[in-house]
Amino acid sequence: MSKLVIVGTVAFDAVETPFGKTDKILGGSASYIGLSASQFEVDSAIVSVVGGDFPQAYLDLFSERDIDISSVEMIKEGKTFFWSGRYHNDMNSRDTLATELNVLENFQPIVPKTYQDASILVLGNLHPFVQSSVLDQMTNASTLVILDTMNFWMDNALEPLIEVIKRVDVITINDEEARQLTGEHSLVKAAQKIHAMGPEYVVIKKGEHGALLFNHANVFCAPALPLESVFDPTGAGDTFAGGFAGFLAQSENISFENMKKAVIYGSTLASFCVEKFGTERLESLRPEEISARLKAFKELTQFEIELTN
Amino acid sequence: MSKLVIVGTVAFDAVETPFGKTDKILGGSASYIGLSASQFEVDSAIVSVVGGDFPQAYLDLFSERDIDISSVEMIKEGKTFFWSGRYHNDMNSRDTLATELNVLENFQPIVPKTYQDASILVLGNLHPFVQSSVLDQMTNASTLVILDTMNFWMDNALEPLIEVIKRVDVITINDEEARQLTGEHSLVKAAQKIHAMGPEYVVIKKGEHGALLFNHANVFCAPALPLESVFDPTGAGDTFAGGFAGFLAQSENISFENMKKAVIYGSTLASFCVEKFGTERLESLRPEEISARLKAFKELTQFEIELTN
Repeated sequence: MSKLVIVGTVAFDAVETPFGKTDKILGGSASYIGLSASQFEVDSAIVSVVGGDFPQAYLDLFSERDIDISSVEMIKEGKTFFWSGRYHNDMNSRDTLATELNVLENFQPIVPKTYQDASILVLGNLHPFVQSSVLDQMTNASTLVILDTMNFWMDNALEPLIEVIKRVDVITINDEEARQLTGEHSLVKAAQKIHAMGPEYVVIKKGEHGALLFNHANVFCAPALPLESVFDPTGAGDTFAGGFAGFLAQSENISFENMKKAVIYGSTLASFCVEKFGTERLESLRPEEISARLKAFKELTQFEIELTN
Repeated sequence: MSKLVIVGTVAFDAVETPFGKTDKILGGSASYIGLSASQFEVDSAIVSVVGGDFPQAYLDLFSERDIDISSVEMIKEGKTFFWSGRYHNDMNSRDTLATELNVLENFQPIVPKTYQDASILVLGNLHPFVQSSVLDQMTNASTLVILDTMNFWMDNALEPLIEVIKRVDVITINDEEARQLTGEHSLVKAAQKIHAMGPEYVVIKKGEHGALLFNHANVFCAPALPLESVFDPTGAGDTFAGGFAGFLAQSENISFENMKKAVIYGSTLASFCVEKFGTERLESLRPEEISARLKAFKELTQFEIELTN
């Protein structure tokens, strides 16, 4: 089996949406990426850090899904990274109510030796310096590196972020972030500029409008599944990245045609993520539910037009 | 050949975009719908009104494309409907600078006898009372009626608009208008409410994010072609409706599967419309260009996933 290593946050989230609010629940980029990728046949590991307040039950959740958590460092005297946010009525924007870095402040990820040659590395949302230090530890030039980042780093650490972007194969980024990073309103032009910065593949996530995959002249567009309601969008982007990476790792094929399928898997998993608070829906997700939704994606997008001229 | 009758405005537009501005050029919902539909093998007619100031050259443009304009009334002493607008930098919003109804103010469309039993009627953007009076003239219960409308009528003539909506088979509406009409943010819920108002088919246009086709439980999603730049969005929605209607009329098939294709044709034609000012691009459009772009749409959206479970 292919090896997939995920470096990101494992955290507590507290979320408020028009539908309700949660206490501290499981959150963090690596949690969503890991749970999503665990739907595929891969050997995966999470590299992260938590505090002494982090429940064993959450760690068990990963272990039960065969995710290697031996590199999730626990700092007994520290507290787990905490984020809290409130979504607006349209669910497209949110206010951050609290960000407590805690043990994340001095996080120095160490990629376990057995994963330094992984087929795929996913760099979840973290300081670009930390992401760079992970890249330095990888030993296999053919590792496919997938980077996820956020506007926060564009505002606060643009130069180191650009240095990381140079070194990755795939970047996943949302539409507003792509525009901010490049100064281009057109997503086609934004993708071209990001290509020029390094990545061969650019995935632009558009939330309820789906996702675009660019590989220079090749473009693929996946819709989001039209949903009656989005219950909690937290983690949808990370869940997308996890499904994308998990499928690629399982299929051991990084052609553009296969990346298209990976985008559909990513979108499919993200469509589940938003149905309940936090990771709840991902935790209960069964393979036959994924199959049924892939079928819905096919019906939603496939058409037959005979091209004659 | 199937008959397609289009009732809407034939107008002068003056448009300002970040790329430049135009003097008075050919505009109006029926102009875009007609030019777009003329790409298909149909007998089509426009029912509209213009003033004595309307150039013969524009009328010739329709005739050369075999569009019957015998029911485009010319009021010699009147002036043609004029609209002027300025697009913002993001091209997603615009300010109306001028709306001069002129001859449109007393427009009482008369559907020619030979078109009263048309296969398809497209009701372009007009006062709902006027749209209703057109419906009263139709004699064939199996005519497929496609309605396009705007938020302006929701603000100013909601009750008569609802009366028209009751009587149509297909409504094309943009996302913000669907939300306004139904009070639902979710487009899935909005489509359900619009179904309950009458139309069997609901097409929600999302601009750069494509279009959704709803027929109760059946949903289809067409992306917009990712474009480097949108030069002038004026008429894109009408061009979509024209391509949609033209394809349906030509194929004489109103199954959901065929409507999916019609949405793709509509999106394809709209993707040309926005490349130049006004109707300019539609006027020069050749069948082989349409074929090439349909191919691009296929490549953009089609994927192969084997469903095993």
